[in-house]
Amino acid sequence: MPAKWEEIAAAKRAKLAAAIPKEYLIPESELPPASRLDVSKVPEEILPKDVIEITEKTGTELVAAIAKGEYTSVEVTTAFIKRAVLAHQLLNIFTEFFPEMALKRAAELDEYYKKTGKTVGPLHGLPMSLKDQFRVKGIEACMGYVAWVGKPDEENSTIVDLLLAAGAVFFVKTNIPTSLMAAETRNCVFGQTVNAYNRTLAPGGSSGGEGAILSMRGATIGIGTDIGGSIRIPSSFSGVYGLRPSHERFPYLKVANSPPSPEILTINVKMAYNEVVVSVDGPLAVSLPDLTLFSKALLGQEPWKHDPRCVPIPFRDYELPNRPLVFGIEATDGILTPHPPVLRAMKMVADALTKAGHEVFDFQSYKPETGTEILVRSWTVDGGENIRGDLEASGEPGIPDIAPYIEKDLKSLSQKELFELNKDKLEYKTEFLEYMNAAKSPSGKKIDAWIRPVQPCAAVPAGQLKLRYLGYTGLLNVLDYTCVVVPVTKCDPAIDLPAPAPGTGSDAELEKKVWEDYVPEDFKNGSVGVQIIGGRLEEEKMLAIAGVVDAALKA
Amino acid sequence: MPAKWEEIAAAKRAKLAAAIPKEYLIPESELPPASRLDVSKVPEEILPKDVIEITEKTGTELVAAIAKGEYTSVEVTTAFIKRAVLAHQLLNIFTEFFPEMALKRAAELDEYYKKTGKTVGPLHGLPMSLKDQFRVKGIEACMGYVAWVGKPDEENSTIVDLLLAAGAVFFVKTNIPTSLMAAETRNCVFGQTVNAYNRTLAPGGSSGGEGAILSMRGATIGIGTDIGGSIRIPSSFSGVYGLRPSHERFPYLKVANSPPSPEILTINVKMAYNEVVVSVDGPLAVSLPDLTLFSKALLGQEPWKHDPRCVPIPFRDYELPNRPLVFGIEATDGILTPHPPVLRAMKMVADALTKAGHEVFDFQSYKPETGTEILVRSWTVDGGENIRGDLEASGEPGIPDIAPYIEKDLKSLSQKELFELNKDKLEYKTEFLEYMNAAKSPSGKKIDAWIRPVQPCAAVPAGQLKLRYLGYTGLLNVLDYTCVVVPVTKCDPAIDLPAPAPGTGSDAELEKKVWEDYVPEDFKNGSVGVQIIGGRLEEEKMLAIAGVVDAALKA
Repeated sequence: MPAKWEEIAAAKRAKLAAAIPKEYLIPESELPPASRLDVSKVPEEILPKDVIEITEKTGTELVAAIAKGEYTSVEVTTAFIKRAVLAHQLLNIFTEFFPEMALKRAAELDEYYKKTGKTVGPLHGLPMSLKDQFRVKGIEACMGYVAWVGKPDEENSTIVDLLLAAGAVFFVKTNIPTSLMAAETRNCVFGQTVNAYNRTLAPGGSSGGEGAILSMRGATIGIGTDIGGSIRIPSSFSGVYGLRPSHERFPYLKVANSPPSPEILTINVKMAYNEVVVSVDGPLAVSLPDLTLFSKALLGQEPWKHDPRCVPIPFRDYELPNRPLVFGIEATDGILTPHPPVLRAMKMVADALTKAGHEVFDFQSYKPETGTEILVRSWTVDGGENIRGDLEASGEPGIPDIAPYIEKDLKSLSQKELFELNKDKLEYKTEFLEYMNAAKSPSGKKIDAWIRPVQPCAAVPAGQLKLRYLGYTGLLNVLDYTCVVVPVTKCDPAIDLPAPAPGTGSDAELEKKVWEDYVPEDFKNGSVGVQIIGGRLEEEKMLAIAGVVDAALKA
Repeated sequence: MPAKWEEIAAAKRAKLAAAIPKEYLIPESELPPASRLDVSKVPEEILPKDVIEITEKTGTELVAAIAKGEYTSVEVTTAFIKRAVLAHQLLNIFTEFFPEMALKRAAELDEYYKKTGKTVGPLHGLPMSLKDQFRVKGIEACMGYVAWVGKPDEENSTIVDLLLAAGAVFFVKTNIPTSLMAAETRNCVFGQTVNAYNRTLAPGGSSGGEGAILSMRGATIGIGTDIGGSIRIPSSFSGVYGLRPSHERFPYLKVANSPPSPEILTINVKMAYNEVVVSVDGPLAVSLPDLTLFSKALLGQEPWKHDPRCVPIPFRDYELPNRPLVFGIEATDGILTPHPPVLRAMKMVADALTKAGHEVFDFQSYKPETGTEILVRSWTVDGGENIRGDLEASGEPGIPDIAPYIEKDLKSLSQKELFELNKDKLEYKTEFLEYMNAAKSPSGKKIDAWIRPVQPCAAVPAGQLKLRYLGYTGLLNVLDYTCVVVPVTKCDPAIDLPAPAPGTGSDAELEKKVWEDYVPEDFKNGSVGVQIIGGRLEEEKMLAIAGVVDAALKA
């Protein structure tokens, strides 16, 4: 007999399945066999031409087309609903699906446009996806916790309200790992989400459902969150673009989080609870201009008038300087040397930038081991109490990925210990800032951006606990620096040959283990992205500079 | 036999006295008798004309004059040193005095100017005062704690470094209350600082030494800090201008604070320790343009490149709209009706603005009792441990003003309780923001600024625990809104007649007690200022609007 929690989870999955109208489902018989690993081209093979025509466009192209009357929002929304359903059938992406609400909204927007000849805002009519954390009135945000199933939200997250005001259409919420504290995407309610380019791989996490849906162009823009890499890792592993903004730039108000107390579902919790390193929300998208479209549209709604934590900084157009840019290239953080495909990606970036006339040089970040240690300490300040409580509330086992955060011998920090942690963080951030102030290229120039891997590996095999180190992303959460992820390449076993651990990382034991993981066939087609990194609250600048990197790579 | 702590305190006072070169001291015989209460005009009576000519100018006028070569920095610094020493003789203001360092610095600036014809920055040559919290290398910051005496600082506070880079000259640090947690200015090391307009009154606090020195024009600009009103109350009580900026606008890095652990003197502590309501630093000055001069000069140094908590917002010139402004006038917060001189000041402001053609209307802030309750809870999150520890380290008794924060039955909050407090704060701030979004004047217009008293009373009798309620200022600390204090009037027993408690405040018991305190003669000449209040990080806008209020009052 299944346990009570298994029954609840099964019922939730059945409810989700029932929310997908039959007319959108591709018959099982037409789907590729499970043995077909790369399903990224399946939509083009199966879906009607008109659906493909729309869904292959970027969000930026689509809002322009809708604003010109070339498409209606209902047409565009319907196309993405169809493509997203197929993506879900192939990768297991959805947590909530609400096409009726979306189509009603799209029709209203079309009606407004028809009547006035105007759009309601810069996102007019564009369907977008949401990580399960983002609340939509009447829809659940169970976050993969069995204990949270069955509690529809009573209000929207602030970011949802503001994007609606800018014209967005929401139709789907996507999968995450239990507790969000893993760079994976699996939980006891919805199971494992997999990667479009190789279905034995993970899409990254914790915003992995967003990575997966975007990689299949089931949407052009989605919203994720990031406390240690959760926007950037799925961007990298799913081969899409992502922006981790600085804290307080985009509104996080009324976003569900873990570990919250169940009684306070309507307000973001970890942010207030653990002020050491805080979660931020930001976009993932199929193109860089889409990240800019999103950021500009959201800031145009003046989020600081609704979320008291947001800084009143409107979107500031950034003009690239009329000179070669200077890039610090940190191919390895010195702790753990990345796998061959990642080293190759970093070389591709450096070569492309050099070829485009920019200055690149080997850069080393300041004491990354100190930053990473602060991050890891911050994750268990509550002694694992909250996550444990949410698991115990239903009896579900959770997922093995989060074992380090709920170990029995963890202890909730005292106020004094919490303070010491905050003090260490502030001191580290201060030293880092002065280090960056002093940093110069060999030709004596200041750095415009710093580039490092997102992960020391390409997209990892799903559900196998092979994501062993979050320092490459997590350091930037401690620093609260702006990061833009640009996809670079995919693991090619014919080029990215296996090798023994180079022994150049300071954590020799970890490096050995990570390099033993590297069986090229296991990572085949695994995407690799890099982070373009700037200072705190430099979103516009870093989006512009990421454009330079992207163009150089595509040249 | 004096206790050990008394000996340490006496030795520190002797050391301070010895730091004042004899040539600057006015002989006791030339000083007014203790019975003369209003000593604000004594400098003009005693000091040489050239000193008065310089020190009666504003900081803005002086930097312009120095930049034109009309004065040297040595001349200006010498003049303020002389006037500050007299102010100290009359009011007991100093904690540290270092005229030699200042004059050496001034001479270097003069030399630079002579050689290059240029200034080093917008504050070139201007002497400024510092609240004792601000660290200057080689100088102590004992903060009125006996246990902290005798530990010279090894580095400057970041704000000190940046102001030096902008050309400032520092020569003095000023008195505070033990632990900073009082709107008074007295401690066991330096004793009581008193008010220039009536020496039986307090100068306000905790930045009371700054209020006192500025009211005597011993400097034109000084720096204070504010966690519940500590810039604004001394501005009001000392009849000067003050700016409480929003958190993260000005750098607070390496500023001493209480309650810190003694082992971590080099980094600001309360800010990290108690993230519920944080202390900010900002200027007090003899004129509004001086507040702007300070803010523009400081932001010109790009503090966000040195303090990782500062937001990268440069000084944004604010152009006043070409229409009547709309002011919400909150003469009473509904909890505690202010004393007659304060009600009169509020009426003066409303009348002056009306006469100048602006729209004023009665405004009520949103649930101020909730905001005030959050503030009060935030002050004892550590159960009083830190302050108690710093007192016990020397055996000093501290001051009775801080008794509520060190009561034996206080308990350090658990992480969960601290989180609940943060959650309550965030919810309150969110509701307040939406309330302000919806607020309209009777003619249907949005509010440009909101004006409320700084305190429900004029400057209070010194050392008598008559400052019973911090809601008028503290609410804005919880909200983190920008406030500018403009002086309005002084208590005049002939006009501001005593009366029974009006009974219109919701806290009838407190109101009764506070109104019983109101014996007009006891408050004679006590200054009254008001707060001009805007949103978070709206410093430039509020300085400009405060200019409108100030001009209307002076018209």
